[in-house]
Amino acid sequence: MADRQPEDDVLDPPAAAEPANPSAIYDADGGFDAGYLHSVTEAIAADDAEHLKRHVVDLHESELGDLLEHLSPDDRQSLVRLMGADFDYAALTEVDEAVRLQIVDAMPNAQIAEAVRALDSDDAVYILEDLEEEDRKEILEQLPFRERIRLRRALEYPDESAGRRMQTEFVAVPPYWTVGQTIDYLRDEDGLPDNFSQIFVVDPSFKLLGAVDLDRILRMRRPATIEEIMHETRHAIPADMDQEEAAQIFEQYDLLSAAVVDATQRLVGVLTIDDVVDVIQQEAEEDLLRLGGVGDEELSDTVLTTVRSRFLWLLINLGTAILASVVIGFFDATIQQMVALAVLMPIVASMGGNAGTQTMTVAVRALATRDIDIYNAGRVIRREVLVGILNGVAFAVIIGVVAGLWFESWGIGQVIGLALIINMIAAALAGILIPLLLDRVGADPALASGTFVTTVTDVVGFFAFLGLAAWWFGLGSS
Amino acid sequence: MADRQPEDDVLDPPAAAEPANPSAIYDADGGFDAGYLHSVTEAIAADDAEHLKRHVVDLHESELGDLLEHLSPDDRQSLVRLMGADFDYAALTEVDEAVRLQIVDAMPNAQIAEAVRALDSDDAVYILEDLEEEDRKEILEQLPFRERIRLRRALEYPDESAGRRMQTEFVAVPPYWTVGQTIDYLRDEDGLPDNFSQIFVVDPSFKLLGAVDLDRILRMRRPATIEEIMHETRHAIPADMDQEEAAQIFEQYDLLSAAVVDATQRLVGVLTIDDVVDVIQQEAEEDLLRLGGVGDEELSDTVLTTVRSRFLWLLINLGTAILASVVIGFFDATIQQMVALAVLMPIVASMGGNAGTQTMTVAVRALATRDIDIYNAGRVIRREVLVGILNGVAFAVIIGVVAGLWFESWGIGQVIGLALIINMIAAALAGILIPLLLDRVGADPALASGTFVTTVTDVVGFFAFLGLAAWWFGLGSS
Repeated sequence: MADRQPEDDVLDPPAAAEPANPSAIYDADGGFDAGYLHSVTEAIAADDAEHLKRHVVDLHESELGDLLEHLSPDDRQSLVRLMGADFDYAALTEVDEAVRLQIVDAMPNAQIAEAVRALDSDDAVYILEDLEEEDRKEILEQLPFRERIRLRRALEYPDESAGRRMQTEFVAVPPYWTVGQTIDYLRDEDGLPDNFSQIFVVDPSFKLLGAVDLDRILRMRRPATIEEIMHETRHAIPADMDQEEAAQIFEQYDLLSAAVVDATQRLVGVLTIDDVVDVIQQEAEEDLLRLGGVGDEELSDTVLTTVRSRFLWLLINLGTAILASVVIGFFDATIQQMVALAVLMPIVASMGGNAGTQTMTVAVRALATRDIDIYNAGRVIRREVLVGILNGVAFAVIIGVVAGLWFESWGIGQVIGLALIINMIAAALAGILIPLLLDRVGADPALASGTFVTTVTDVVGFFAFLGLAAWWFGLGSS
Repeated sequence: MADRQPEDDVLDPPAAAEPANPSAIYDADGGFDAGYLHSVTEAIAADDAEHLKRHVVDLHESELGDLLEHLSPDDRQSLVRLMGADFDYAALTEVDEAVRLQIVDAMPNAQIAEAVRALDSDDAVYILEDLEEEDRKEILEQLPFRERIRLRRALEYPDESAGRRMQTEFVAVPPYWTVGQTIDYLRDEDGLPDNFSQIFVVDPSFKLLGAVDLDRILRMRRPATIEEIMHETRHAIPADMDQEEAAQIFEQYDLLSAAVVDATQRLVGVLTIDDVVDVIQQEAEEDLLRLGGVGDEELSDTVLTTVRSRFLWLLINLGTAILASVVIGFFDATIQQMVALAVLMPIVASMGGNAGTQTMTVAVRALATRDIDIYNAGRVIRREVLVGILNGVAFAVIIGVVAGLWFESWGIGQVIGLALIINMIAAALAGILIPLLLDRVGADPALASGTFVTTVTDVVGFFAFLGLAAWWFGLGSS
């Protein structure tokens, strides 16, 4: 990010007489302050650039991103136009993709090129990677040679790889330098990155040899050589590694930043924890949304995009619902003779569906965090089945008594109780085995498990209940 | 964490002839390597401390934590015993609570006290906060005065507050020091924290004045004063702030570390991003698990704990399922005259349930990330209803044709289509309004929304479908 420590410039005198108080833009609940938002939209409506700048210029990029998301599409473009050169383009990395594209698409390529030049390489890539091939080419051609090469190389790495998220600005020194030489270099060099917490050590061909944390340099006396105080970089990240995998390494080893290397172990960039935090958030969010049957949906998507993205999931659900209906259809004669069955059957299916979802949720999360594998899968399966049996028996008693009293028939109470136990065991097995199986065949368990699990619990639930009833009461089935 | 940059000691000669290769403990899928695990359990079974140490001593705390979770409870305790003083107690912060308690409960208090002394304060608090009041007191009494005071103070902050997560070791200097003086101090002082990325600036009463990033000190010449190069700490975290709120500040402003202050703005500790990453993970996980109807469950919980924690959720679901059955019961005479209704009715309920869950998932996530508030709530509600109507009409046509062909009655096709549209609109409204309402009254929308939403879609679905059918075909209801 361009500006990791936004406080850096706070001690500069404010640009205008009435600067925005950053804490005043949010209200006590963490939502946007109504008065602040009103002032901004008023300034935009009045086309008053000076007034607008007073309110916006001191915002952190994430606050500006928040503000943009709260404005109407037209107001967003007016804000960018009115702010002119004072607009902090890093804010575009903080908004939903739909909002970003809407703003960027309205900008001429020359303006995008200028924006890209002002940004750190990772932020620039973030904006460029969403653009059409042709626009991207035109924009890159307007950049200075060195920047063009750097960005082009980053863009050549696969989507969602470490190479896309890395910053290509970093500090690298040779191993034979002393601490004194290094400090002098840092004092004299103008082209340093805005922020850095590590110095990398490379050989003449830029092959990565190690790294030194800044606190280590500060503790050492000037004659010590870098080679003596550097540590091996055990966790160098290959540039084509998936960002999720890279995030897991950061998390496991509590890294703050890590070197990114190409296939020949040459240092090409640095990945920092702030970018990784975003990845961790995204991945957790992805699992949650997928479990809920919504893909990579964003609040700012259009209605039609949302309709389309949800349609497929609902269509699959329709198929499984029809399958459950077909099972019920087998027993239509039974139901006609005993309509209480129709009244009670959703209970069996619903309890199984919920129990299955519980198990599945735990399984999907455990797979995502790698807490489950072949060594403990057997233990987890046994545990889930046992939980299913115990809760199955408990609820069998409860619903058996309720149904028996309701329809004044202990027979129906016994049938529903037995059916419930069967379905709770089926739910436990489906809830754990389906995610494991999907994971094993390389599918995303968060995406598809839900449908399969409820299909199993619906089909087993209806079949067990109606089938048992038909047999128990000697009722005909068609 | 005790050892943020585990590579620090890599260049030391290995302790034994056959050191564990850290990358060899995981297989290609990121799971535990079978051969490695086998060697460890064999060494434990043979009571061979030397052999075990060769495999375990070089592990990172998180790797050791992973290993502990993969062992049986008995093997875990044997490992701690055999490793003796070489056991890295920081690993206890990396395992599930149930595993941690199992290991710690088996340790005498004197041994826990020794472990706590070896840890950073944040890790020590992490272990102490789970213990019984009495044990904690006994352990604290065995610690040196300064550490005891520090830990006691941290433990006095509320559960899950920044004060519990902070590290009490930090570097603080007065504002009138020069860069040169500061560097000399860092070179000479022995009691510095293991790692630090910021130096804090305080007045004689330890009131926080600002902070300086290490890269800034390295760039400046020796005569510059700290006061000139420090920045105001705009995001100092009050020690009693909830850890989730603190994590949101870290995330929004891309902080790497932040000062923690008491009520009088005195510096009491530092919160670092690696601890915050854990909090972010936990919070995302919490929402996912709660949406799935499982509370704060862990894979290592006992069967009975799991049964109990899931029971309540299933009981609530049973209540709502019975409510839906009561609605069906109103129409038992109608069903008896037209058994096709019993066959088809789960489809209407199921489609509504799924559509409602989609909307609810988006709403819960948007509330968690504060992407939804009173300014855009109206827009989001309109959008969701529109999506519900559009998908409702689409699926009404599909299921209308299917049902019409299946039961050779266009009447039933029209009834189910109309009921579906009604239920999809109800689903959209319930999916967005229920989470908003729960959030407004201060309840956790992730926890309770699911039950309410499916209650609405079940009741509305059955009622709309059966009621419309009774009216359309002039069938009696009881």
